[in-house]
Amino acid sequence: MNIAIVGSTGAVGQELRQLLHERSFPVTGVRFFSSPRSAGKQVDFGGTSVTVEALPEDGNLGAELVFSSAGGSVAKAHARAWAEHGALVVDNTSAWRMDPNTPLVVPEVNADAIDTHAGIIANPNCSTILALMALAPLHRAFGLTRATVATYQAVSGAGAKGLDELTRMTRAALDGTPAEPEVFEHSVAFNLFSHDSDVGEDGYNVEERKLLLESRKILGVPDLAVSATCVRVPTYRAHAEAIHAAFERPVSDDEARAVLASAPGVTLVDDRAGNRFPMPLDASGQDNVLVGRIREDASLPGGIALFLAGDQIRKGAALNAVQIAEAWLERGRPGGR
Amino acid sequence: MNIAIVGSTGAVGQELRQLLHERSFPVTGVRFFSSPRSAGKQVDFGGTSVTVEALPEDGNLGAELVFSSAGGSVAKAHARAWAEHGALVVDNTSAWRMDPNTPLVVPEVNADAIDTHAGIIANPNCSTILALMALAPLHRAFGLTRATVATYQAVSGAGAKGLDELTRMTRAALDGTPAEPEVFEHSVAFNLFSHDSDVGEDGYNVEERKLLLESRKILGVPDLAVSATCVRVPTYRAHAEAIHAAFERPVSDDEARAVLASAPGVTLVDDRAGNRFPMPLDASGQDNVLVGRIREDASLPGGIALFLAGDQIRKGAALNAVQIAEAWLERGRPGGR
Repeated sequence: MNIAIVGSTGAVGQELRQLLHERSFPVTGVRFFSSPRSAGKQVDFGGTSVTVEALPEDGNLGAELVFSSAGGSVAKAHARAWAEHGALVVDNTSAWRMDPNTPLVVPEVNADAIDTHAGIIANPNCSTILALMALAPLHRAFGLTRATVATYQAVSGAGAKGLDELTRMTRAALDGTPAEPEVFEHSVAFNLFSHDSDVGEDGYNVEERKLLLESRKILGVPDLAVSATCVRVPTYRAHAEAIHAAFERPVSDDEARAVLASAPGVTLVDDRAGNRFPMPLDASGQDNVLVGRIREDASLPGGIALFLAGDQIRKGAALNAVQIAEAWLERGRPGGR
Repeated sequence: MNIAIVGSTGAVGQELRQLLHERSFPVTGVRFFSSPRSAGKQVDFGGTSVTVEALPEDGNLGAELVFSSAGGSVAKAHARAWAEHGALVVDNTSAWRMDPNTPLVVPEVNADAIDTHAGIIANPNCSTILALMALAPLHRAFGLTRATVATYQAVSGAGAKGLDELTRMTRAALDGTPAEPEVFEHSVAFNLFSHDSDVGEDGYNVEERKLLLESRKILGVPDLAVSATCVRVPTYRAHAEAIHAAFERPVSDDEARAVLASAPGVTLVDDRAGNRFPMPLDASGQDNVLVGRIREDASLPGGIALFLAGDQIRKGAALNAVQIAEAWLERGRPGGR
């Protein structure tokens, strides 16, 4: 299969290249695209050096499968054209997620939605993917009605430049030298702050709204209630989330644990005696989402509280996109043009 | 007034010395006590050098007011004896908090409880104090019934050695040199983890249980439901908390904001357009607790969500203790032996 990656030099683009190679994705040819600024650069694909190209104006990427990871405005403007030239576009951006004709897919949750695509399949927001890896199996078993989520989001959500900024600002803070934030509004060194996305009239920011709207679409529960507080913390790659969930019927912690223990893509890390639970450092570089602190909600009888950590670049972005492509192949390359 | 500080060389002890001087507390004499290891050390009190003493065995600290900040086991063993020698003991540890004869006080919330002390007044857990600075005014206005709290707790909760460990581990991580955690179980460098306190059979750890039980006692609501997830994050001094609260009647965000805007010890930081909300860096060194992200709870009609940050060493510990002593003086030094 001829594949293309648009946005191939960023943090997610780099992870996509690595994952396609690692997972022996059936690749016959690759084309890597980027902004004109990075065009001409050499990047690695499984030990081979590949020259990065600028996007062609006609929208013909010469690929059957396009991973789109260059930002929402690029995807909004061009993804339809790429699809019209015969590609399935797996879009990592927010551009098409809420489009009614575009499936929004976490393969462990709603792989069947792939069958009805119209050229584009959207990869959900990172926080949403990670939350649903735990909430979707519980939903299938008990019927999720509402959830509150407090996130601890790594700087990788802002890409490679977010990673660099955490290093630069932290080093300056330790050395006592002045440094100004460039990627984030506020210093990320030994600090944390409300997510760097616009805040709406209801007081929720865009990231929090994604958690609500995307969860509803993926789970197929239009009246699902999700209230999130999204916070950026000084960690590199992996997000964590503290979640309280309520269901159609009371759920015991043993029932919840049994469901999560057999959930695909989930690793239980729930050692109460050893005080070992999901941590970003442990989740970094892992495919699975780590879930623990599973307990009955002391404030809501019948509800469940839990804590999770998952690699934002991997399952929160690149891995989920590759898994969408893998599921599309397994399902016989359905739909599309 | 002759005062004593037990545990005078730790992070909270140092802050207590500074605050007593800064706030012109009516001090005629000071005695600073510490572990035998630190005895003989010179510490500063308002520009004067004072020699730290080992605790006398007879329990007579020669003080009318004792700030106890040397750990729960010391307070458990000796606070009663200090009080029997005529001192009011303001205890920063967890030793006496749930004792039915010991008031547990946040002066802005329940200063009247001071009048019924029996020699000891307990200073609440840091996370509880900060949460109640926002929740108590809302409770008075609307009747709090339940709350979920996710914390983002600074390393200062583990004292001066916690602060040192964050610096040491972070520097090692940046330099790529090996380093082992000593204070915490896990690396705190660019990582976060479930609070380092024992986990009970119900899955809640000791810190989370404090938030439940101490809130009930301070607010005088025995059936208050509080479910907390307490998490240690790589920040130095100030804790943050994401809170969802439900009340006896539906509350609008305007009503909640109006109450919090006039709440003593609270500074509203709720700039939606500028995306500026409470941050640990802004809260560090401040007396007031910063509160923002005030919005109606999208998952619980009538409920309120908010985010706060407060200096753990200051309002979370030393400042609240000094304020208890100040309130005791203002109320005419009630009770006691």
